[in-house]
Parts: sequence; structure tokens; C-alpha cells
Amino acid sequence: MLTDAYQPYVFPNLTRLFSPRSIVVIGASEKPHSIGNLAMQNIVEHSGFKGEVYPVNPKQDSVMGLTCYPDVASLPKPADVVVVVIPAGGVCAAVEQAGEIGCAFAVILTSGFSEADDWGRAEEAKLVEISQRSGIRIYGPNCPGLVNLNLPLGMTFSPAFKDDIAPGPIGLATQGGGLGRNMIQHNERGAQFGLWSSSGNECDLQVADFVHHMAQDPDIKVIGCLVEGFKDGARFAAACAEAARRGKPVVGLKVGRSEYGARAAASHTASITGSAEVNSTVFRQLGVVEVDDLDELVDVAMLFCRKMPTGDEQIAVFASSGGAASLCADNVGMAGLTLAEFTSETSARLAEALPAYANMSNPIDTTSISISHPDAYREALAACAADANVGLVLAPLPMDYGSYSVVNAESLKAVQDGVDVPIVPIWMSERQGEGYHTLARAGLGPLKSLRNMRKALRRWVDYGAWRAAQDSEWRPAIIRTGSGGEPGATRTLNEIEGKQALAAAGVPVTAPEIAQTAEDAVRIAGAMGGRLAMKIVSPQIVHKSDVGGVRLGETVDTAKFAYDQIITNVREASPKAELSGVLIEPMAPEGGIEAFVGVSCDPVFGQVMTFGLGGIYVEMFADVTRRMLPITQAMAMDMIGELKSARLLTGYRGQPTRDLEALAALIARVSDFAEATPGLIEMDINPVWVGTEGEGAIALDAVLVVKA
Amino acid sequence: MLTDAYQPYVFPNLTRLFSPRSIVVIGASEKPHSIGNLAMQNIVEHSGFKGEVYPVNPKQDSVMGLTCYPDVASLPKPADVVVVVIPAGGVCAAVEQAGEIGCAFAVILTSGFSEADDWGRAEEAKLVEISQRSGIRIYGPNCPGLVNLNLPLGMTFSPAFKDDIAPGPIGLATQGGGLGRNMIQHNERGAQFGLWSSSGNECDLQVADFVHHMAQDPDIKVIGCLVEGFKDGARFAAACAEAARRGKPVVGLKVGRSEYGARAAASHTASITGSAEVNSTVFRQLGVVEVDDLDELVDVAMLFCRKMPTGDEQIAVFASSGGAASLCADNVGMAGLTLAEFTSETSARLAEALPAYANMSNPIDTTSISISHPDAYREALAACAADANVGLVLAPLPMDYGSYSVVNAESLKAVQDGVDVPIVPIWMSERQGEGYHTLARAGLGPLKSLRNMRKALRRWVDYGAWRAAQDSEWRPAIIRTGSGGEPGATRTLNEIEGKQALAAAGVPVTAPEIAQTAEDAVRIAGAMGGRLAMKIVSPQIVHKSDVGGVRLGETVDTAKFAYDQIITNVREASPKAELSGVLIEPMAPEGGIEAFVGVSCDPVFGQVMTFGLGGIYVEMFADVTRRMLPITQAMAMDMIGELKSARLLTGYRGQPTRDLEALAALIARVSDFAEATPGLIEMDINPVWVGTEGEGAIALDAVLVVKA
Repeated sequence: MLTDAYQPYVFPNLTRLFSPRSIVVIGASEKPHSIGNLAMQNIVEHSGFKGEVYPVNPKQDSVMGLTCYPDVASLPKPADVVVVVIPAGGVCAAVEQAGEIGCAFAVILTSGFSEADDWGRAEEAKLVEISQRSGIRIYGPNCPGLVNLNLPLGMTFSPAFKDDIAPGPIGLATQGGGLGRNMIQHNERGAQFGLWSSSGNECDLQVADFVHHMAQDPDIKVIGCLVEGFKDGARFAAACAEAARRGKPVVGLKVGRSEYGARAAASHTASITGSAEVNSTVFRQLGVVEVDDLDELVDVAMLFCRKMPTGDEQIAVFASSGGAASLCADNVGMAGLTLAEFTSETSARLAEALPAYANMSNPIDTTSISISHPDAYREALAACAADANVGLVLAPLPMDYGSYSVVNAESLKAVQDGVDVPIVPIWMSERQGEGYHTLARAGLGPLKSLRNMRKALRRWVDYGAWRAAQDSEWRPAIIRTGSGGEPGATRTLNEIEGKQALAAAGVPVTAPEIAQTAEDAVRIAGAMGGRLAMKIVSPQIVHKSDVGGVRLGETVDTAKFAYDQIITNVREASPKAELSGVLIEPMAPEGGIEAFVGVSCDPVFGQVMTFGLGGIYVEMFADVTRRMLPITQAMAMDMIGELKSARLLTGYRGQPTRDLEALAALIARVSDFAEATPGLIEMDINPVWVGTEGEGAIALDAVLVVKA
Repeated sequence: MLTDAYQPYVFPNLTRLFSPRSIVVIGASEKPHSIGNLAMQNIVEHSGFKGEVYPVNPKQDSVMGLTCYPDVASLPKPADVVVVVIPAGGVCAAVEQAGEIGCAFAVILTSGFSEADDWGRAEEAKLVEISQRSGIRIYGPNCPGLVNLNLPLGMTFSPAFKDDIAPGPIGLATQGGGLGRNMIQHNERGAQFGLWSSSGNECDLQVADFVHHMAQDPDIKVIGCLVEGFKDGARFAAACAEAARRGKPVVGLKVGRSEYGARAAASHTASITGSAEVNSTVFRQLGVVEVDDLDELVDVAMLFCRKMPTGDEQIAVFASSGGAASLCADNVGMAGLTLAEFTSETSARLAEALPAYANMSNPIDTTSISISHPDAYREALAACAADANVGLVLAPLPMDYGSYSVVNAESLKAVQDGVDVPIVPIWMSERQGEGYHTLARAGLGPLKSLRNMRKALRRWVDYGAWRAAQDSEWRPAIIRTGSGGEPGATRTLNEIEGKQALAAAGVPVTAPEIAQTAEDAVRIAGAMGGRLAMKIVSPQIVHKSDVGGVRLGETVDTAKFAYDQIITNVREASPKAELSGVLIEPMAPEGGIEAFVGVSCDPVFGQVMTFGLGGIYVEMFADVTRRMLPITQAMAMDMIGELKSARLLTGYRGQPTRDLEALAALIARVSDFAEATPGLIEMDINPVWVGTEGEGAIALDAVLVVKA
């Protein structure tokens, strides 16, 4: 199992936020439709809350029959949670009082803070100060509140809260409220949510904290999160690592996969959205199941609630229509999943249950006996679900057949009650008749289309495979650098400096020397012998070829001419550049393959490595792979294998296998170096020469950008 | 506009099938729940049919108050349609009688034919004979019937028919019935179907005939088709070309995109499924909008009913939740579509209507004024929809807010009534409250998720772009070869024969000569001069390199040795091969780029060309493009541009531009040659050498497989 060796972040204990013993409502009111009244109603009337509730409102003596206090200072004792619904102007003072008397959490529903204007930004900064000074932790502001459906308790003004009360094992962490409510409303088809945080501006507590809390909560089995932007990527990664350690899948949707989304999300939540590629890299590395839409998030979470996958599930398709059987099987194939082959025992049971004209191999088509002979249908389904090779049964239902569909739904439920293998109906019809509701109520979580099935099932199985791989080798994601890339002056190391730094860190580089004169060049070339590369060294020149500053294949005989030529070219192209001399180094043997290794600082997730083969593979096919640092040699081997062009390294068309061990070692050394170099903004080692087995891998060029 | 120059197929006139004046029901019955009774009920009670109905049943005098005839021969006059619901054993005789008295169409619902067993296959073959002999056209057998919802008339036994009666502009052609009913049930959200054919085994009439009919029917604007397998691919292509000519989009879903689906569909419908890649090629070439699932087919068809796209629509997002605005905009970006920039007039109207804290640029977030100030919401929406830059307005609605959602829905409808630009709501919630039904009834065709929106909208816009391109240059899809690739003996031409055939067709090839002896080789090499390629010629050897049968870069000096070496190598590796000699030809100049051109015979769609650059581009990145023949030089240019690696031909990293004109001309000549060579099974020209501009393109090797 996963170990808990890695715990670099201290997360707050949020037990009393989600399950308070006492709640203050600042701004409680009896005025119909007011936020203060809606919040009170939800806590007092619609929740099953057994603790104390203290309304605060200077203009009233009591609210909903409860003694009302003029201000927080007058409360008889501190409360676990203070719900704040007064206008923005009074929020700081109220929270300060609450902090002073020792309240633990403030849930600030009020809007008009950093999302609104400069005044709001300043007030929000004050809230952070108050929190740091008094220890009160802040949820919000600018949010619809917090919901614990397992109690149930809704600290929210949402008029929809009362309609969506049912307990469940799914925890949901969102930022805005609207899309969270969208997912909660999937309770219509049986999705069971237990906790929902919707943390708005996140001036203090953030998605990462809620994910971490849900990872601890024994009633939560699966965590969903919808993120518009991260306040602290490293903290999020640590929370996901904790969820993984506890065997709880995190299913994530991140807004900002296109420019439009990134821009809109940034303006909506004032968070840093980061790069979609890096985000996907991080999700994959942490085992966060990245999904494509809200309904898919719920689909996948519901499947996890049914059963945790092993990663090698084979699928049975059980249909009563030839078309549905075909199209469903088609989608299983398109997902790259495997249809189970039935055992002879199953085949015998099917042959006994079904008429001769039914299709008894996988995908099963029972034909219309689903209507005419429900018992036979049930017996055939039971046989299919009991097959030792079947890891999950799909039951596509193409249309609403009224009462017949109800009978089918009851058969599915009856068989499911007797087996452990999940039976997953796909209610393909737009018409949601009673059969559909029967399936939803039975906890069978009907999927809504074959395409949705295809995507959800693939992700479910993939997570099982990911977990299985982690069991033997857990690689903690340590993000030591936090959010890098802050603005500031930078300096680009020259190639000599860069290579010296890399060499000191154990990265194989060519051993260059620098010539200040043509005579130097001849002397150095003579000592090195063989074919040489000669390149200009200047702090102002990064793209050396563009100014005629590179010559390859020179020898001692041509070194003087080459030196003079480089100096002449560069003087002409860049008259103002300071020239430090001409670098001379032995050329790598011919026949190598060129790769590149880059490290950049993502504003959200810190140092990330990009690796690939150079030139066309990147530029035309975007054939690269990425990882958060640190990267071990074993991880580097995985990265190499992930390239579509990996076969070029492993012996394409009779060519020799490349020195993969050396390449992986080089990648790991670069990772170590990047981690150990705090001021590193960016580095680009391009090309890395990769020889055949035993020949090694060498950094031929390196550009390093550091803080000035 | 598209011309009607191309009409190689004669399609039957199906007017009297879809709109008969008289109907016979063979097997009409009053027995409750019998197929004969259900069919009669649908025609007599649930349809608006005004013509004559003749029940036929030897055991009854009248059925449902109508005079019943003992057999078809006793009918007073021939009918337009004969609906057959008697058991399979009597079908042939009944249809034969119907044909003899001059009935036009037989709709055979009965099962137990080619889908069942050998007896059924023989009976179905008899039906085909009867049809050919008497001229009666056959629909089915083994199908749920035919539905004309615009009359309405249901010649079907489906008990669901009566629940789905509403007219509409969408025609739907399926094979099985279950999945068709699934799509019809999207009438729940306002999808309006007018015709539905579901043609089962298709022993005579097939999907292509129905597509063609719907292309003629003035009440049909859009055609959907779900195909498990094609009876005649060329016919289908011709029908789609006719629909395109008449400006009616065809939206298609083809089962068999994975091995599982292909196998299941083949066993379900006994059709040839063909290759998914070729199918997608054909769809794209014919402008058939290929979709990924049933609900997507309906989504796209509904958008076409709203408005025909121009291809350059810019999108507005109009939301009342910041999260929904962000995620919706994100999906617009992910679809590669453009968010409209509002005119200053629109901005002024929005600023007047909305509060200052709303987001007034695209994506619009009205905030909760959608609830508090419905008039302002409506005015803002009207401003947005009236903007000159906006081609379509998306209105994502993340949750069901009960009566508030109804008010919003009514606002959408009210604004839509005044503008031409489609306003498309996205009902994202699983809960389908009254607001949802209001939208559906208003004809606004709510989409069901952002992902569905992303896919449907992209396809809608793409179709507009395709049509716009066709307006200037319509390329008819002529499939002269029909279904090729029938089994039979084949013969592989040797390289000399192949190149001679290509040269005769105007394809540039190297001019090889053949040496029978080492002395020959020296003489030929001397005459040719320069660097030479030498290759074994043998009818048994296709992969010449594998047996040491190829030597490159030889000269007159090395020709003897090379000849002897090739003969020795081949004798050792393939002692039994007949050797025709050694081919000698000048080598192409160095520095060319290698492409390949292949033509294969798809069992469904006939000759298809595959083009790409060789080696790694195909093998690792599957970077190829395909077209049905014939291919003009202009089409070939498009194909070249479609490659991901196209930049290698157009001057990558300062390399010279390649001779694209010559390459395109070569492709077009190969197409001409393939079309003019009836016995051609397959050809593979690999490599094609492509020089720089002016240097030409030359077929360096060619393998042609022809019928023996």
C-alpha cells in the first residue's frame, strides 16, 4: 500500500467546520426572502442540526424563536462556526470580534470583496490579517456556503438546499456555487453526495483543504472537485496525494483548457489558472481522474461508489436490442476496453435461459424476451453477472418502454442484489419514465448515453490500473518550489557557465574550453583532436546559429579560419554584443539521436519537466511528455516510453537500441539539479545526444535562465 | 450552387410508399396484442390516414369494422402498400400475389429471414426474385415498419408509435428499430421528426433509397442516418450527393468504429461494415456530418433545423452564473470556435440593462438579475442576440431553479421570437423541471451538457464551412468500381510491369531496364551512368530488401559485383523463386523527400487512396489522409495540406519548398490510372520521390495487385 512517509503540508482540521456543535448567524433575519432569513431557515428548519444556534442582529430580540444577540461580543460563549450574511462593509468588524472571542471558523457568504473592486480587495486583505492574528479560519467570502448532507446541515442561503438533502459517500469541492448545484442535482439519478464545499474567493481555506478533509472523513469514499483556478498548486497536490494514500479517488475538472476559459475563470475567481497541459500532467501524476464535463465527473464518481476497479476489468454487454448491443460493444471497443469471453458454464446457463435466436455471446442480445419472458431475462442476466471473467455488466436500454422498462429495471436491481460485480444500466432515451427512476432509486446509477459510458468506464478502469501500479511503487509528488516564475530580473547563463553547473551536478556534458584568440583556438583544437564544434559565447546572444556563431566539424587545421569567421559573422550581425570568446568542444559521434529536456516553472505547480525528441516530433506532432519534479530514473524511463516516437529509441527498423539507461539517468540528474537550484527560472537542454547502448547520453547545449 | 450534372444512379420514387393512397394489411387481426392487431390499430386508429385500408385474413370477415379479404388475390384493386405481418412461411406467396395484382410496395415486418437461418436466407432470396420479376419493391423484412409523422401514418406494430406523433423537418433512416425509437424520443426536448424508415434486412430498398427520398421531400430539411452496415456504398454516396445538391445536411452515425462493433453489426444486419477509416473519409468527402453517438446526431440535426450555418458564425455566451459562463466559454474555445466581440452599440445596451458588477463582455454573466430582474435579463439577451457579430447565442443554465427557470425560459423564447440568430439553451441540470419543458416546447431545442454543445456546435459550423467551399467547387463523388475486393485469384505485377503500366498512364516513374546477366548489368549501367539502384525481379518476391535483393548507389564499376551479390543473396534466401533478372535504374537525386501513394478497394465504397509521407510518419503518427477516387489535382493539393507533416513539404526550417504541383499531378494521374484499370485490387507506390520546386515527383517503386 501507499506509505505516509510524505506529509510536507500541515492541513487544518476542519471537523468542526463541517460538523459544528454551535453556529452563530451574523445577520440573521425574519424578513422573508432575505439572505439572513434563508440561511436561518436552512439551519433551523431544513437541517437535522442538534447544536446551538445563535442569531445575531442588533435590530431584533429573537429570530425564529431563538434569542437574538446585538453583536458577536455579547454571545454567551464562542461558537464553532460563524455564518456571516451582513453587507460587506460590516464583515471585517464582525469577523474580528468572532476571532477575539475564540470562534473557530467564519463562513462568509457576503459578496463584494476581491471579485468586485479595489475596496473589496483591501477588505479581503484585512480578513486574511484578522485570520492570521486571531486564528479564526475563513471560508469564502463570496460563496453560497457549505453543506454537510450526511448530518444534514446546510450553512447556506440557497433555496435549493432543502430539495437536495440525502446522504452519500461523494465529497464535492467547488469554487463557484452554480456548477456545484448542477452536480448535486444528479441525485435525480442516484448520485449520493455527502459533503459540498463551495469556497468562493478562498481568501483563507481553499479547495486543497477540503479535499484533504474529505480524504480523512470516513463517510466519504470519492472526492470530486471542480476548479476554476488554484490558490496554491502545491497544497492541492499534497491533498490529492493524501487522498490517494487513503485509497480515495479524486475526480477533477479544471476550467481553462482553452484561452477563453482561462481568461473567464481568472476574472471570475481571481485565481491563477496555469497551463492546461501542466494541469493535466499533474492530475495524471497524482492519479486525479481528469474529466471533460460536469456530468462526466458525476458518472465517474458514481462508478467509484459502485466498486473500486482493479484495472483489468473485462466487460459484458447485456442488451435486448441488436442495435443497442452492437453500438454498445462498439463503444467498449472504442474505449480500448475488453469484452469478456464467457466461461462454458455461463454459455450453458445462457443457452438454457434464452431462445435459440438470441445472441448468447458477448454482446448478448436477449431479443424481446426482456418483455415477453422477464424471468428468462433475469436468469440470463444473473448468468452473465456471475461469470468469472466479467468485471462489469453494461445494460444498454435504448428506449422508454413504459411499464416494460420498469420490469426490466426491477430485474436489474434483483440480480444486482445478489452479486458484487456492478451492473450498470445505460438509459439511452431522452424520455425518463418510471423505469429510469426505478434504476436511480435502486442505486444502479444509470448512465445517460453510450458516449458517456465510454468515457466514464475508461476512466474508471484506468484509475484501477493506476492504483495497481502505485501499490508497488508510490512516487510522492513533492513540489518544493511552490509557485515559481514570479516577475523579476533574470539572467541567462552562457553555455560554458551552464555546462559547468550541469557537470557539477553530474549531468554528462561535453567538456568545452573557451578560446579568446585564434591562436587559443588552434591550441585547444590540437589538444582535443578530432572533429570539433565551435560556438560564439556572448551574454547577449542566445540563438547562436542565427548570427553565424556556430561551426561544426572543424579540426585543428581549420580552427583558425573558423574562429576568425565566427568573430567576423557575429561582429557584423550583432555589433553591440559583448563577446566572451569562442567555445570549442569535441563533437558527439555521428549517428546519435537528438532529444531535448526542458524544465519550466509553472505559476501554479512549480517545476515541470518537458521531454521529447527534437525538431519535427515536437513541432508537428507535439510529441512530448511532462512530469512535475522530482523525477527519478525509473520515472524517466516511463517518460521515454510515453513518447509516440519512443520506437526511434528502442530500435526502429533494425536500428540499434539507444542508451536508455543513460538518457534516463541524465533526466534524473537534471531533475536533481533543477530542484537544488532555487533561482532557476527555466532551462532548456537541446539537443541531448543519445548514443547506442553503452555510448551514453550527453547534453550538447544548455540554456539556463536564473534570477538575476 | 451545386450543380446536378452528376446523377449516375436511378433511385426509385418512394412517394407512394411514404404517402400511400391505399394500404393492405396481410395478417390483420382483432386478437389483442397480436402484431396484426397492433399494426391495424396504428393505421386505423392512431394515424390520420384518409385512404383505403384492406385487411387480409382468411379467418375473419371484418377487422375493426373494415371488410376483410381472404387473400391478396381477392382484393378489389391493387394497393400502393402491402403491410405483411404473417409468419415467415407465408410471406413469399403473399408478396408474390401482391406483385402480380400490381401493388407497388411490400412492407414486410415479419422476422425469420436472412438474420435467422439458411431457410430464411433462401426465402429472402426468393423475395428478391419476386421483386425483380413483378416490380413490387420490398421494405424489410425483419423490421418494425415505416413511419410518416407528417401525415401522420404509422405502418408499424410498435406500441410506442401513438406516443410519438408530431410532425417535423427531420428525416431519419435507420436499419434496426430500437435505436431509431431512441432518437424519436428526443421529441421530449423538441426534436421534430417527419419521416422514419427502419429498413431491417434491406433485401431490396435500403438506407440509400430513403436518404434519396428524403432529399426530394420538400417537408424534410435535415436527414439523419444510423447505419450498421451498407448494402451498397456507392448508392449511399450518390444519395448523399443528391442531398448535398439540394442543400440538405445528412448527419450520420456508423456502427463499427471498433472491431467489437463491426463484428456485432455484421452479425446483426448481415451487411458489410467496411473500414471505419474509409467510412469517415467518405462521410467527410460527401459532407455527411459524422457524429459519435445517438444524442449527438439529434443535437446536430436540431441545430440545422434552427438555421443553416454559414461556417463563420461567432458565438455569444449569455449566462447568469460566473462558473457557467467560464466553463461554457472554455468549451467554445476547446471546440476551436470564436467568441464574438460585441459592437459598441451592444456594449452600451448591455451597460444600460445590467448592473455594474455583471460581466458585460463575452462571455456575459448577468449575475442573479436573471432572478431578481427578469426584464433586465431579457433586454440584455436581446441586445446580445441583435449584435451584428453574433451568429449564435449560447445560454447555459446550470441548475433547475423551479419557477425562476420557467421565467428565464420564457425570456429566451420571447427574445428568440424577435430575432433570426439561434438562441440555444444548454440545460445542464439532471433535473428536468418545467423550465426545461418550456424550452423544449418553444422549439429552442435545449442541449444537455456543455460537452454535447461543444461537439454539436463544432459540427454545425463545420458543415457551413464545407457548404461554403462546395459553392465554388463541387466535386462529385463517383464510385465507378462499386464494391471491389471480391475474393478470387490475384496476381502481383513485377516492378517493371507495374512501372510500365504507370508510365503509360502518365505517372512519372524511373525508367528501369532489366539485366539477365552480369554483363547486361555492366552494359546498362554504363549507358545510364551515375548512381544506380539495382533490385531483384521475381514474381514470388515482393519484399525485395528482406532477401538481400536491393542495392543502392551502384555505378558502372560496381555493377557486376552488385549483380552477382543480388543473385547469390536471393538464391540463398529464396531458392525456389523464379528470377526474371535484376532491374537497374538511375537513382533519384539525393535530398528528396519520400512520400507514398496507395489505392485499395474498400468492400463498401470501392477505390480509396491513402497518401502520406513514409516511414515514421505513418508508423508512429498515423499521419495519412484518404479520399475516394477520382481525385483531381486540386483535391490532391488539399490532401497534401491535410498532413500533419505537410510543413516538411512546404519549407520546414529553411529547407526548400517541394514540388507540390508535380506531386499533386502524380496523385491525380494515379487516380486516373486506378479508375481506368478495372481488375486493380490494390496498388502501393512507395516511395514517391519528391524533389524541390521544378524537380518533379517520381514513383521509385510500385506494387500492383490485379485480378488473375
